[in-house]
Amino acid sequence: MTKTEITRLIKEKNTFLCVGLDSDINKIPKHLLSERDPVFEFNKQIIDATKEHCISYKINTAFYESMGVKGWESLEKTVNYIPDTHFKIADAKRGDIGNTSTQYAKAFFETLNFDAVTVAPYMGEDSIKPFLEFKDKWTILLALTSNPGASDFELLEKNGVFFFEKVLEKAITWGSPEQLMFVIGATQTVWLKRIRKIIPDYFLLVPGIGAQGGSLQALVEEALNKDIGLLVNSSRAVIFASEGEDFAERAAEEAANISREMAKHIIK
Amino acid sequence: MTKTEITRLIKEKNTFLCVGLDSDINKIPKHLLSERDPVFEFNKQIIDATKEHCISYKINTAFYESMGVKGWESLEKTVNYIPDTHFKIADAKRGDIGNTSTQYAKAFFETLNFDAVTVAPYMGEDSIKPFLEFKDKWTILLALTSNPGASDFELLEKNGVFFFEKVLEKAITWGSPEQLMFVIGATQTVWLKRIRKIIPDYFLLVPGIGAQGGSLQALVEEALNKDIGLLVNSSRAVIFASEGEDFAERAAEEAANISREMAKHIIK
Repeated sequence: MTKTEITRLIKEKNTFLCVGLDSDINKIPKHLLSERDPVFEFNKQIIDATKEHCISYKINTAFYESMGVKGWESLEKTVNYIPDTHFKIADAKRGDIGNTSTQYAKAFFETLNFDAVTVAPYMGEDSIKPFLEFKDKWTILLALTSNPGASDFELLEKNGVFFFEKVLEKAITWGSPEQLMFVIGATQTVWLKRIRKIIPDYFLLVPGIGAQGGSLQALVEEALNKDIGLLVNSSRAVIFASEGEDFAERAAEEAANISREMAKHIIK
Repeated sequence: MTKTEITRLIKEKNTFLCVGLDSDINKIPKHLLSERDPVFEFNKQIIDATKEHCISYKINTAFYESMGVKGWESLEKTVNYIPDTHFKIADAKRGDIGNTSTQYAKAFFETLNFDAVTVAPYMGEDSIKPFLEFKDKWTILLALTSNPGASDFELLEKNGVFFFEKVLEKAITWGSPEQLMFVIGATQTVWLKRIRKIIPDYFLLVPGIGAQGGSLQALVEEALNKDIGLLVNSSRAVIFASEGEDFAERAAEEAANISREMAKHIIK
């Protein structure tokens, strides 16, 4: 999916919502636990119910890995089940020396056919470049995350430049806005003006709306760009809206609610 | 395995070698490809041949993930095959917000029963703490890596303090030398004196001997401590010493050679 196609999709569907499939087996409705693959069954019903109200799904690999081989089976089935009309993100936060990053890129771009994968910047250029070498695929680099620990390193400052800004400045020399996005936590809205100065044309993947407390209003005011430039993720607030048999229906309502708010800001 | 037990093991076996199972299916001997699980068969023979000459195995998850579900099956079989006399490291470089890091910790410490997992520091304290909460398990934090990209961020400097040193300084407030180790690339020996000033008592996991060009001599001169304090990893130089039917034998020879060098520096 190209940047132009993502923007077109957002305008057609009137939403820039990404639904996060953090499908913790301990939190999915109890009545699904008798299914052969409860996590996949949960995801299937969530996808069926929410696909009208979002343009993207993000699979958090941790919740699948914690179940070992069975979890990877659920993950594989889930990514295959997501319609090709939707932008498929592996939230994996990988990153290693070059030949190893190439293997991670193969895992998510080829073996599993995701459109995008999140990666961590710590190890620098040769840990990121292998992801960027895959044509028609997206690399989404951690920049300023939504968690309290962001203040430990990401917000270290030197001569008025914060560490995550250094990451942005370096990274835009590695990849264009047609192949690279950045993770900016929804709780970090005070930084958005500075961020958009460095990366006006890049898409941001913004987790943290809902359960982590981020606000949509503050976000769009500062970060919307000419291409929309935002994918906003909600995981728990959507997929765990209900623990009962109505979980998919309630997830759809929740996704529709968020998307209705988003629609107000989408100028066509 | 406690720190005391690791040191005892090193002194008993006269080696601090960790063999890295970066078992790329495209590099393993061709005659194994007709096996039902070629990667596991390769690992099994490598483990059988090298276990006398090392105290630890490190599984690089990328090479397994790139094969999808089948790869995770090979990974699971491999970690179960490694004898409990050996320290089992998942080289996974994970790290995410708290509830997600907990899932990664479960994946490697509970579902797969590794002794240790490598993690990336970018997201700060609450991304690392969940790993440290697992009793009798080890967290191995990236500090100064062996790759060229280390100079992009890890070696940024402010008032004479380098970024990776900030990571060390913070991290030692999160975990003790009984539960936390650090990754220091074998190509980074010029930094070892500074590193040992900050973390005199912590074990270092040192990759990059062999294929990446690091030298054992320079390493032990600067970094050996009273507990030995070093796990030195060699992957490709050992496991791919031969592409022929003698691959396991040649791997054993290579591991024995490295261990013979190490033995010279182990004072009992």
